[in-house]
Amino acid sequence: MGEISLGRYIFERLYQLNVHTVFGVPGDFNLSLLDKIYETENEHGGGSFIWAGNCNELNAAYSADGYSRVNRGKIGALVTTFGVGELSALNGVAGSYAEHVGIVHIVGVPSNEAQKKQMLLHHTLGNGDFTVFHKMSMNICETTAFLDDLATACNEIDRCLRTAYTMQRPVYIAVPSNMVDMKVPQAMLDKSIDLSLEPNNVQSQNEVIDRILGMVSKASNPIVLVDACASRHDCKKEVKQLVEVTQFPVYVTPMGKGMIDEGGIGGEDLADASAFKNLAADLSSGTSVASRYGGVYIGSLSKPEVKEGVENSDLILSCGALLSDFNTGSFSYSIGTKNVVEFHSDHAKIRSAIYPGIKMKELMQALNKKISSVLINYVPKSVPRVKLVNTPTEVSAPLTQAWFWTRVSSWFKEEDIIITESGTAAHGILEARFPNNVVGISQILWGSIGYSVGATLGASVAAKEVDPKKRVILFVGDGSLQLTMQEISTMIKNGVNPYIFVVNNCGYTIEKLIHGLNAKYNNIQPWNHLQILSLFNAKDNQSVKISTVGEADDLFRSKDFGVNNKIRLIELMFSPLDAPKALVQQAKAAADVNRGNVL
Amino acid sequence: MGEISLGRYIFERLYQLNVHTVFGVPGDFNLSLLDKIYETENEHGGGSFIWAGNCNELNAAYSADGYSRVNRGKIGALVTTFGVGELSALNGVAGSYAEHVGIVHIVGVPSNEAQKKQMLLHHTLGNGDFTVFHKMSMNICETTAFLDDLATACNEIDRCLRTAYTMQRPVYIAVPSNMVDMKVPQAMLDKSIDLSLEPNNVQSQNEVIDRILGMVSKASNPIVLVDACASRHDCKKEVKQLVEVTQFPVYVTPMGKGMIDEGGIGGEDLADASAFKNLAADLSSGTSVASRYGGVYIGSLSKPEVKEGVENSDLILSCGALLSDFNTGSFSYSIGTKNVVEFHSDHAKIRSAIYPGIKMKELMQALNKKISSVLINYVPKSVPRVKLVNTPTEVSAPLTQAWFWTRVSSWFKEEDIIITESGTAAHGILEARFPNNVVGISQILWGSIGYSVGATLGASVAAKEVDPKKRVILFVGDGSLQLTMQEISTMIKNGVNPYIFVVNNCGYTIEKLIHGLNAKYNNIQPWNHLQILSLFNAKDNQSVKISTVGEADDLFRSKDFGVNNKIRLIELMFSPLDAPKALVQQAKAAADVNRGNVL
Repeated sequence: MGEISLGRYIFERLYQLNVHTVFGVPGDFNLSLLDKIYETENEHGGGSFIWAGNCNELNAAYSADGYSRVNRGKIGALVTTFGVGELSALNGVAGSYAEHVGIVHIVGVPSNEAQKKQMLLHHTLGNGDFTVFHKMSMNICETTAFLDDLATACNEIDRCLRTAYTMQRPVYIAVPSNMVDMKVPQAMLDKSIDLSLEPNNVQSQNEVIDRILGMVSKASNPIVLVDACASRHDCKKEVKQLVEVTQFPVYVTPMGKGMIDEGGIGGEDLADASAFKNLAADLSSGTSVASRYGGVYIGSLSKPEVKEGVENSDLILSCGALLSDFNTGSFSYSIGTKNVVEFHSDHAKIRSAIYPGIKMKELMQALNKKISSVLINYVPKSVPRVKLVNTPTEVSAPLTQAWFWTRVSSWFKEEDIIITESGTAAHGILEARFPNNVVGISQILWGSIGYSVGATLGASVAAKEVDPKKRVILFVGDGSLQLTMQEISTMIKNGVNPYIFVVNNCGYTIEKLIHGLNAKYNNIQPWNHLQILSLFNAKDNQSVKISTVGEADDLFRSKDFGVNNKIRLIELMFSPLDAPKALVQQAKAAADVNRGNVL
Repeated sequence: MGEISLGRYIFERLYQLNVHTVFGVPGDFNLSLLDKIYETENEHGGGSFIWAGNCNELNAAYSADGYSRVNRGKIGALVTTFGVGELSALNGVAGSYAEHVGIVHIVGVPSNEAQKKQMLLHHTLGNGDFTVFHKMSMNICETTAFLDDLATACNEIDRCLRTAYTMQRPVYIAVPSNMVDMKVPQAMLDKSIDLSLEPNNVQSQNEVIDRILGMVSKASNPIVLVDACASRHDCKKEVKQLVEVTQFPVYVTPMGKGMIDEGGIGGEDLADASAFKNLAADLSSGTSVASRYGGVYIGSLSKPEVKEGVENSDLILSCGALLSDFNTGSFSYSIGTKNVVEFHSDHAKIRSAIYPGIKMKELMQALNKKISSVLINYVPKSVPRVKLVNTPTEVSAPLTQAWFWTRVSSWFKEEDIIITESGTAAHGILEARFPNNVVGISQILWGSIGYSVGATLGASVAAKEVDPKKRVILFVGDGSLQLTMQEISTMIKNGVNPYIFVVNNCGYTIEKLIHGLNAKYNNIQPWNHLQILSLFNAKDNQSVKISTVGEADDLFRSKDFGVNNKIRLIELMFSPLDAPKALVQQAKAAADVNRGNVL
């Protein structure tokens, strides 16, 4: 029987789970572990298993999160070193916890012997306590394992990986440096990790389905509302099928944007200005999912036709709701619970009744098979489409938020991955119409500024593993960029070619709108953004500054610009207080909450 | 009676404690708190109280740490926002804990009302638990306060500030957004915070002194060994006096370097190459502290004359020892405990006997008054000086580590602050001789790479508050720089002019020497370092690359270069595996510990 090292075992398991790139930073307690990454690559062929090598650990955690959101294996992984490295990653890991993203945080720690002797090693607090950092991580991980016994190590690793996948939350595995080269039977790899969800209780599920069918049969204008957890818990297909079968109108929340085909026409050379008037295919007569798409629901911040469509509905099938302040227009939903069915990753809820353990994936699959039987009297009405109106503007007019987010819609293409940073970008993107099969990424609940840069690295690597032509498009504010800018260097090192749109509005515009409009603390040091790619030694690259409508139009019409054949940085010059309408309203509401004026 | 806001109260207290600059990043739960910084400045005059405004929170924590180490108030402060911001700072805060540095971590958190209602706010984990981040910080802080009651808030704040100062450890204060503007009596500020240490027990202290005097009277070659905690707990003056009174030879550990005058001749234009032979004043006949300085003791990694001087001593007075691996040549001390007296911040130890609560500052003051009485028969011998030999080299010869660290000694000046990053720089600096009154900063125990860049910002701001001509000199490796490079932008924003020496050896040389000499994970993306200052919009600056001995010599001879009238970045080109001798040996020892081969 062959044997492999315990370190290798971890990476072979990740490889089996479709994790083909690992993020992180070397440190002297993880170096021998990192050797095993190359062993794993050698086993499976050049380029099959990659160490991305980040600039710092926080960025590595963001990368693993972005990778997980795009990767078909729905997991990301990072390796850090004891103490200094793992603590730097905590904010990123906590974000994955909040937003339901499966990541594996592997930490190289001192040898069992050094721990036992309580040696005063570097990277410790100097008090002989080797458990303190593990304890800190427990607060923000679904489960953890601090390996210390070879006999149980493989099972512990498998348990953590299974949890990361099924729960879509972070897990933590500490690997003592002396255990990395200990041997385990290679045959342990033969049996794959069981990733299946525990089946729902049949009786409960039938009860839930019967109640839903009863409600559907009586409803005259039911809708589907799609939110973050439907995506995180792998129910995109089930949601799509629900809409196809029922032809109910479907809306998304900000965190759900990208989950449903929107039917935007993308990637076209729109020489004719009239085409801007409504950047969508003529969907009026179709039955496609896109023809049933109604827009983004954000409570009182919604566009009128969206607000009406959702709030006048007499039955809401809510899929994967995550009702945080920024995802709900500061809790301004007017839908009550009277006619709401909620599908969640670990329970279902009908009106006020909770059904624990009835998980949405299986429930929706079962429901989709039966629901057409109660739709006999349901006549789908056409769904009003939110119009994207872009007033024709002089080419010399300065760029505005109102113009830009509508215009950029026509440049998006099917299969794009579109990442928006908290603040202006995450709110602006709600004005854009996505083409079908776009993935949208934005950290709306956790909202850690700087996240999007690391996430773009991770998403780009994951996209490249599927198809190098797949475009990854980042919109990041100049303020947020300052937190994590060095990760652009890691993009270059790894040969990925995202589009980096820097929304330059001279500081933290979202904060200015919440509080401190003219306060010095909301200003930042101005940077010469066009020098970034050159500083980081990008060989083939484009760096361009866009100040007017005409310059933006020319760029979006350029055939070369549409192809991701090099890394590109596009600096978009906006006036400092120009902000998307939803952001202005959201900021006002957030300021109220801060003052203690709670609803 | 006048009233002030609770937010203002915090900053007025910091102002009283000589904290005149606050580090951190704005976030929507701390914005109204930040307003109070400007109110405090207005009260005391322009420039009296400054918000530095970092690029990210980890760097802000490093800055507060660097500020604390230089500031006469011996405290630094940073403000972050709930969740995302505070977690990003944890690695920096933990470093301050490990290394005994007093910092105050102030976190703006959601309003009491939002907490009570468990609102699903952004920057939360989405589970209604507002206590989790506080719990995480408790692990790495000496004490914490989560304010919730105005009646006790001022006392809680005072308690935390007092603890940060007296214990020289981090403390954590959470301020709900709705409490910032609540009013407290201004008169609460009239009584200063009591910063005095609790007096030692007289009887115990006398017993300790008697035993020490007995040992000193019998010793024929006693020495003083100075370590980190003597500096952190404000005993520099007491240590100096001990050496002056006794004329005992004095040695430092790596973490103690800079604590004792070394008598280097600095800031001179050394036109005569022969002057390199021994860059020190002729001290043989003097009685100054510098004439008693023997060098850096690192166990078996010490230079032979140092090892002999320390290990042949028959009485070691050890001040503020922090015996971590990198501070002791991997625990290779050969001094036993038989004739060692240890002075610590919270106890004394004589041979194997511990005297709890006998704090070093008071003990040393008392001892210094009595010790001359037992020195009647002690005849000071001259202390062999470590020679700094620099073989004359061709001007075209490439830069080497062996040549550089000796040569740079002659460029250092009295009062300089010299900061070295973990790795090559922290080990290289041990080869340099400091002029008198130099402050050395290096994070040898915690060893978080990237620390030195943030610390340089903090130290530069603190230095500028004392004297804008005071030079701050950073040596940082190209690998470490990548973690925190954006904080150079904050240096520019705040108008400080450190010297930034980038030790470019193409990657993580220290890691290569520990493990993975040719491993890809120890390589980094090469950067065009000379473009950094320009990217960050430095108006007046110097960026220069140094590859040869001649170029370095010319630079160090330049009169203009010696003056800190602009920010300067000097890229030093070294061969990738060229490392200071102490580093090569240290790396070997660290690799042994990782394999589990513990002493």
